[in-house]
Amino acid sequence: MGRLRMAMVGGGPGAFIGPVHRRAAELDAAIELVAGAFTSDPKRAPDAAAFYGVDPARSYAAFQDMLDAEKKRPDGAEFVCIVTPNHLHWPVAKAALEAGFDVMSDKPATATAEEAHALQRLLAGMPKRLYGLTYTYTGYPLVREARTLCISGALGVIRKVVVEYSQGWLSTRAELENKQAAWRTDPARAGAGCTGDIGVHAFNLAEFVAGERVSSLCADVSTVVDGRALDDDCNVLIRFANGARGVLHASQIALGERNNLNLRIYGDEGALAWRQETPNELALTWADGRGETRHAGAGHLKTSGEGYTRLPTGHPEGYFEAFANLYRDFACARREGRTIETTLVPGIAEGVRGMEFVELAVTQSRKGWVEFRGGKQ
Amino acid sequence: MGRLRMAMVGGGPGAFIGPVHRRAAELDAAIELVAGAFTSDPKRAPDAAAFYGVDPARSYAAFQDMLDAEKKRPDGAEFVCIVTPNHLHWPVAKAALEAGFDVMSDKPATATAEEAHALQRLLAGMPKRLYGLTYTYTGYPLVREARTLCISGALGVIRKVVVEYSQGWLSTRAELENKQAAWRTDPARAGAGCTGDIGVHAFNLAEFVAGERVSSLCADVSTVVDGRALDDDCNVLIRFANGARGVLHASQIALGERNNLNLRIYGDEGALAWRQETPNELALTWADGRGETRHAGAGHLKTSGEGYTRLPTGHPEGYFEAFANLYRDFACARREGRTIETTLVPGIAEGVRGMEFVELAVTQSRKGWVEFRGGKQ
Amino acid sequence: MGRLRMAMVGGGPGAFIGPVHRRAAELDAAIELVAGAFTSDPKRAPDAAAFYGVDPARSYAAFQDMLDAEKKRPDGAEFVCIVTPNHLHWPVAKAALEAGFDVMSDKPATATAEEAHALQRLLAGMPKRLYGLTYTYTGYPLVREARTLCISGALGVIRKVVVEYSQGWLSTRAELENKQAAWRTDPARAGAGCTGDIGVHAFNLAEFVAGERVSSLCADVSTVVDGRALDDDCNVLIRFANGARGVLHASQIALGERNNLNLRIYGDEGALAWRQETPNELALTWADGRGETRHAGAGHLKTSGEGYTRLPTGHPEGYFEAFANLYRDFACARREGRTIETTLVPGIAEGVRGMEFVELAVTQSRKGWVEFRGGKQ
Amino acid sequence: MGRLRMAMVGGGPGAFIGPVHRRAAELDAAIELVAGAFTSDPKRAPDAAAFYGVDPARSYAAFQDMLDAEKKRPDGAEFVCIVTPNHLHWPVAKAALEAGFDVMSDKPATATAEEAHALQRLLAGMPKRLYGLTYTYTGYPLVREARTLCISGALGVIRKVVVEYSQGWLSTRAELENKQAAWRTDPARAGAGCTGDIGVHAFNLAEFVAGERVSSLCADVSTVVDGRALDDDCNVLIRFANGARGVLHASQIALGERNNLNLRIYGDEGALAWRQETPNELALTWADGRGETRHAGAGHLKTSGEGYTRLPTGHPEGYFEAFANLYRDFACARREGRTIETTLVPGIAEGVRGMEFVELAVTQSRKGWVEFRGGKQ
Repeated sequence: MGRLRMAMVGGGPGAFIGPVHRRAAELDAAIELVAGAFTSDPKRAPDAAAFYGVDPARSYAAFQDMLDAEKKRPDGAEFVCIVTPNHLHWPVAKAALEAGFDVMSDKPATATAEEAHALQRLLAGMPKRLYGLTYTYTGYPLVREARTLCISGALGVIRKVVVEYSQGWLSTRAELENKQAAWRTDPARAGAGCTGDIGVHAFNLAEFVAGERVSSLCADVSTVVDGRALDDDCNVLIRFANGARGVLHASQIALGERNNLNLRIYGDEGALAWRQETPNELALTWADGRGETRHAGAGHLKTSGEGYTRLPTGHPEGYFEAFANLYRDFACARREGRTIETTLVPGIAEGVRGMEFVELAVTQSRKGWVEFRGGKQ
Repeated sequence: MGRLRMAMVGGGPGAFIGPVHRRAAELDAAIELVAGAFTSDPKRAPDAAAFYGVDPARSYAAFQDMLDAEKKRPDGAEFVCIVTPNHLHWPVAKAALEAGFDVMSDKPATATAEEAHALQRLLAGMPKRLYGLTYTYTGYPLVREARTLCISGALGVIRKVVVEYSQGWLSTRAELENKQAAWRTDPARAGAGCTGDIGVHAFNLAEFVAGERVSSLCADVSTVVDGRALDDDCNVLIRFANGARGVLHASQIALGERNNLNLRIYGDEGALAWRQETPNELALTWADGRGETRHAGAGHLKTSGEGYTRLPTGHPEGYFEAFANLYRDFACARREGRTIETTLVPGIAEGVRGMEFVELAVTQSRKGWVEFRGGKQ
Repeated sequence: MGRLRMAMVGGGPGAFIGPVHRRAAELDAAIELVAGAFTSDPKRAPDAAAFYGVDPARSYAAFQDMLDAEKKRPDGAEFVCIVTPNHLHWPVAKAALEAGFDVMSDKPATATAEEAHALQRLLAGMPKRLYGLTYTYTGYPLVREARTLCISGALGVIRKVVVEYSQGWLSTRAELENKQAAWRTDPARAGAGCTGDIGVHAFNLAEFVAGERVSSLCADVSTVVDGRALDDDCNVLIRFANGARGVLHASQIALGERNNLNLRIYGDEGALAWRQETPNELALTWADGRGETRHAGAGHLKTSGEGYTRLPTGHPEGYFEAFANLYRDFACARREGRTIETTLVPGIAEGVRGMEFVELAVTQSRKGWVEFRGGKQ
Repeated sequence: MGRLRMAMVGGGPGAFIGPVHRRAAELDAAIELVAGAFTSDPKRAPDAAAFYGVDPARSYAAFQDMLDAEKKRPDGAEFVCIVTPNHLHWPVAKAALEAGFDVMSDKPATATAEEAHALQRLLAGMPKRLYGLTYTYTGYPLVREARTLCISGALGVIRKVVVEYSQGWLSTRAELENKQAAWRTDPARAGAGCTGDIGVHAFNLAEFVAGERVSSLCADVSTVVDGRALDDDCNVLIRFANGARGVLHASQIALGERNNLNLRIYGDEGALAWRQETPNELALTWADGRGETRHAGAGHLKTSGEGYTRLPTGHPEGYFEAFANLYRDFACARREGRTIETTLVPGIAEGVRGMEFVELAVTQSRKGWVEFRGGKQ
C-alpha cells in the first residue's frame, strides 16, 4: 500500500499547471510522481527531472517513449496526468488510454468538440479505464457543500444563476512576453480564448453546483485587445432546462481582477454565494431573511466528515488543496476499482459539455441584438 | 434667504418614497415642506399633514387644488416634488409645470416612453423651468467621484461595464399583502416591472458613471413568480457607442438580496468598483496592479471640496444623504437661476433614455437564442 | 401637535457637532430648531442664523439671554441642546435646567467628574426635568439589537468584551490648523484628550450593549505626538462585575483609521461583532459554530417594529439616523411625560460613569508594569 | 541533488501538526519524509508508516532508536523535525542535535524558559548545527511583505501595535473528548495554556513584523472555563523599546472565532493591517489618507521575486504554503551551508524570547489594577 505512481506529460520549464498537479497529487502522501515527458526538448529533460525531484533516467523527451518504457518497469507509473497545452490533450490521452494507463487530464478535455466526442467514444469502449478531468474549482470544500445544498433541495427550486470569471492579466498584449499568455492566445495551441480558458470553468461550476443543465444560450464573445487572435471577453445569457435563467460572464481584460471566479444561486427557499478568492466561506440566505455563513472545516457543514479539508477551520486552505481533492478522489476510486462517475471528479461527459458550450458561444455570438437609440430622433 | 418652500404630490400613508423626499429635501435646512396633496382620500389628509409636520390647512386632497391654492399664497410653495406611483408622474408634472412650478420628480420620468417624449417636448418650450429626476444613486459622493474618474480619463478607454441591481423582496407574491409591492407589480400603475423599477436605475447609473452611452442591447426579461403580471427578472447584454461591452442584470426574485446595486467599470488604465450597500468606499485598481480604496469624506478625493458629504470620513452617510445631494443641487441651481444641465441632477434627457431602455428590453426580449444540447446525440 | 421647538447652545461657524444635532433633531419632522446661541461673537450670529435656517432675531450672542428671551415667547423654545466644547457643558446645562428647560447634551456630560457629580445632584432635585446625553453610537439600530441580545440572555453568560475606538486624524499636530483639533487637544476646553473624547464612547458602548458594568481597570494612557498637551492614545485592561474580562483601546494617532469604533462580545452561548463603519450589519456566531448576519431594517430582528430604521433593508442609514433615534426617543418621552430612564437615551448616570472612567484611567495609568528582558543576560 | 531526507518525531494517530509538517516539507519536491518515531506505541507504528507513506521498517517506536538507526544508513535521514507535545521538545531536540542532526522544531521551543535557555546554550556550542522554529505565521508572503515595509522604514516610526489571536474552540471543556484539547490544557504536557499555545504566536508575529522588541508589559491572564488547569484567556498591554505602545490579546474561549490572528501596526507615515484568515491581502494606509491593498503573488510587492508564492495572484494559498516557506528556507540554508540567522526562519533566539514572554505574563498577571466604582457613593 505504498504511494500510487504517477507519470506526467507536459509541465516543462515555465509551466504553471504542471507543478500544481505535482503538488496536488502528492499532498496526501498517497501519490508519487515518478516519471515524466515534461518537455520535448531533450536538453531540458534533466533540469525538469531535478525540478520535479524525479530520477533523471525517467525524464523522457517523447511521451510515447515514456508510455512504452514505464509500462515495462515493475515499478513503472500506474497512471498518467496530462498538463500540456490544449491541442495535445487528445493525442496524449488517446495514446495513454490505449497503452492501458488511467488518465487525469487538465481541462479542457480537448481542443475541439469533435475531439471531445472522439475521446468519449474511445472511453465508451474501455469501461475499466479511469478518465478524470481537473475542473479545479469543483474540488473546493465549500463548492461541494454548495452542490450538496442544491442537490438536496435545501434551496428549493433553483430560479437564477449568476456566474462570473474575471481576470485582468490579458488587458495588455502580455502574450508578446509571457509564455503562459502566448499559448493561451494562440489558436493553434489553445483552440479557444477566454471562453475556452476560463468561461468553460464558469460553465462547469454553475452546472456542477446547481445540479441543473444549461439548455439554451445567447452570447456576446469578442476580442477587445487589438492584434489578439482569440476572444478575450465573453458574456452569455443562459437558460436552464428546469426554467431557471442566468448570466455567465468571463473576461481576461477586466483590469485589476485577479482570479475572480464567483457564483450565486438563488432558489425559492434559499440562496448561496461563493467566491474563489475567499474560498473558505459560503454565504447563505434563507427565506426568512437570515444570513448564514459556513466556514470550511467547521463541524456544521453537510459535507463535514468527507475529508475535503485537512486543517481546523480558520486555517486557510486554497487552490492546491482543492486540486488535491480531485487527486484524492481519483486515487481512491482507482484503489477501490470504482468508476469516475462514483466520485465528484468530472469526467468525459463534463468535458464534452464544456467543449460544446465553448463552440456554440463563439460561433453563435452576437445574434439577436437590437439597436438602442434612446432619445435620438 | 429663508428655506425654499416645497409642495409634495403623493406620499400618503404607507408610502416609502414620500418621507424619503421630505427628509432629503430638509436635510440641509435649505428647503422646507409646506404643503402637499399627499393622498386623494380627504379623510386621511389631516393625518398626512401631522405626519409631515405640515399645516393641516395646506394638506390638499387634489393636486390641482393644491397647485391653484399655493400659487395664490404669498408664502406659497415654490416648487413641487412628485412621489406618486408611476402612472401619475406625467399628468402631475404637466399640471405643475404649466402652473409655473419647478418640479423634482421621482423616477421613472413617466409610465411610458411616449409620455416621456411628450414631457420632453413640453419642457423644450419652457427653458426657464427646472425639471429634476431623482435617480437617487447618482447622488452618492463616491458615485460622483467615480464619474469624475471616468470622465477625466483616469481609467483610460472604458472597455467593459458590469452593473447589477438585485433584490429579493418579490421572491414570493408579496403583492398580495404589501402596498408597495402591489402597485409596483400592477401594469396599470407601474407601467413596467423589475426592468422599469430597478433595471432602469442600473442603466442610468452605468451611463452616468461611465460617461458612455449604450448603443445596442440583447435582453432576457421574464416573470419568474407564478401569477405575477409584470416582469421580475431582467438580464441584458449591452454595447456602448465607444465599443465597450457590458452586462446589466436586475432581479426582484434574487432571494436574500437586499438592495444590491453595484457597478464595475474596467478601462485600459484603471478599474473601479462600487456597491450601494457599502456606499462610502470606492475600490480602484491601477494598471500596475495596485489596489486603492477611496473613502467618502476623505481629503484625497477628486471631488473633495464639492460638499457631497456632511461628516468627517468614517462617519457613515447613506441613502438619505445621497438623495439630499440631488435636492441641494436643485435648490442651488434654482437660487442661482441655472438650468438643470449645469448640475449633476438627471433631467428629462435621462428620463427619456430610461423609458426607451425599459420598453426596448421588454419588447425585444428573448431574440437570438440558440439551443444548447451539450453531449446529447 | 406641531414640531417640538428646540434651541441650540454652541454650533457656531466651523463646528462639527452642531449641524449634526440640527439634522438629527429635524429628521423625523417632530422637532424644529427655532433659536440658538450659536456663537459668542455677535457679528457672526446672523450668518449662523442663515446657516441653520433660523429667524435672525432668535440668534443670540449669549446663552443666558437666549434662555431669558425664549422663556417669555409664546412660541419659545421648549428644550435646549448643548453642543459647545466640553468646559461649557456644565454651566450651560445648569442654567438651562434652572430656567426650566429640558436638556439634550452632547457628551461628555461635563469636563470633570466633580462637575458630573454636581449635575447629578442638581437633577436629583428636579425629577420632572429631562436630561439626555447623546452617546451617539447607542442610537444605531444594530447596537440596540445587540443590547437586546445580551440583556435577554441569548449569548449566555458574557465572558469577554473587546472594544476599540481608533482614529488617525491626530497622528500629526492637526491642532495647529484645525479648529476641531484645537479645542479637543486643549486642556482648558476639553478637559481630557483621547480618553475623554473617544475612549469614553467605547466605554459607554461596551456597558450599554453588554448590560454589564466595569468594576476594575488597568490603564496605559499616553501622549504620542510631541508637543501635545493631552493624551492621544489609551489602552485599558478591564474587568466586569460579573467576572468577564476585557480590552478597551482607543487612539487618535492610529494613522489611516477613520472612525473605527467596533465591539465584540463573547458569551458562552453566542458572540457578536459590530463595526461602526458598516453599521447596518451585526455578525453573530452561535455555540454550534454557525455564523449569522443580521441586517438593519430586516424583519428577523428582535428589535424590528421599534422604528429604529426609516428605510427598507439594504438602503444604508448612518450616523445622522443613529443620532436621530436619540432625539426621537427624547421627543417621545417628553410628549408622553416619561423619564429618560424609560428610554434608551443615556442620562446623567451614564455621564457620571463616563467621567469617572476617564479620570481613573488617566490618573492611574502605567501602574503594575514589569520589565521584559527576553533573552538578554 | 535528490530530495533532502527528513525524519519526524511525533505526529502519531490523531495528531494535527505532524501531517502539516509533512505536507509543508514535501510541497516543493525538495524534501522527503523517510523515517519517523511517530508514536511511542509499537503497535501503531505500522499504521503511522502507511499514513505517512513511509517504509514500515523506518517507523520506529523510540526516537533514540530512530536517531541511532538513521545515522548509520547511507540513505538515512538528514535532519529531524519535532512535532511532539511541548514537554518533549527539549529532550528530543537535545538528542537529535547531539546525534548530529539538524532540527526543525514546532513551537514553542521548549516547555519552560529554563529549558529554552539550556537549548540556547547547547546550540551556542554547535555553530554548524541548524535549528529552526516553525512560528508558522512568519511564513505567509504578506507577513514577510509587511516586515519588509516596517524594516525599510516605509511606515516611518512605529508608534502602535495591536495584535490579537482569538479562538473559540475551548469555550467549552473540549479537553474531555478531544485529544488536541487534552494535551494543550494539561500542565504536564503543554507547560502553558492559551498564552503559551497562541499568545506566543501573537507575540512573535508582532516583533517579527514590526522589527521592534517588547521591553515591558502588564498582563491579565486567566482561566475562564471552570475546571480547566491552564489559562485560556490572555490580555496584555505592551511597550516596545523604541517607545511604541501596544495591545496583545489572545483567547481560546472567544466563542465563534476560528483562527483569528491579526496584526495592525501604525507608524507616523503609514499603517498596515493583516488577518490570517484572509492571508493573501495586506491593507496599507498612507499619511495622505489613501488606502492601498497588496495581494500575494502580485508584481508590485516589495518581496515579489522572493518565491514566497507558488501561484499567480488570485489563486489562494494558505497555511500549508506558509509553512512550506519555512521548510524551503531551511532546506536552502542547509544546502548552501548558511546559518538560520541568514534566513527568515525563527531560531532559538526567538524561542527564548517567546518562553520568557509566556512566563512573565503568567506570573506577573493582575498587578496594578484599581477598583472602578463609577457613580457608586
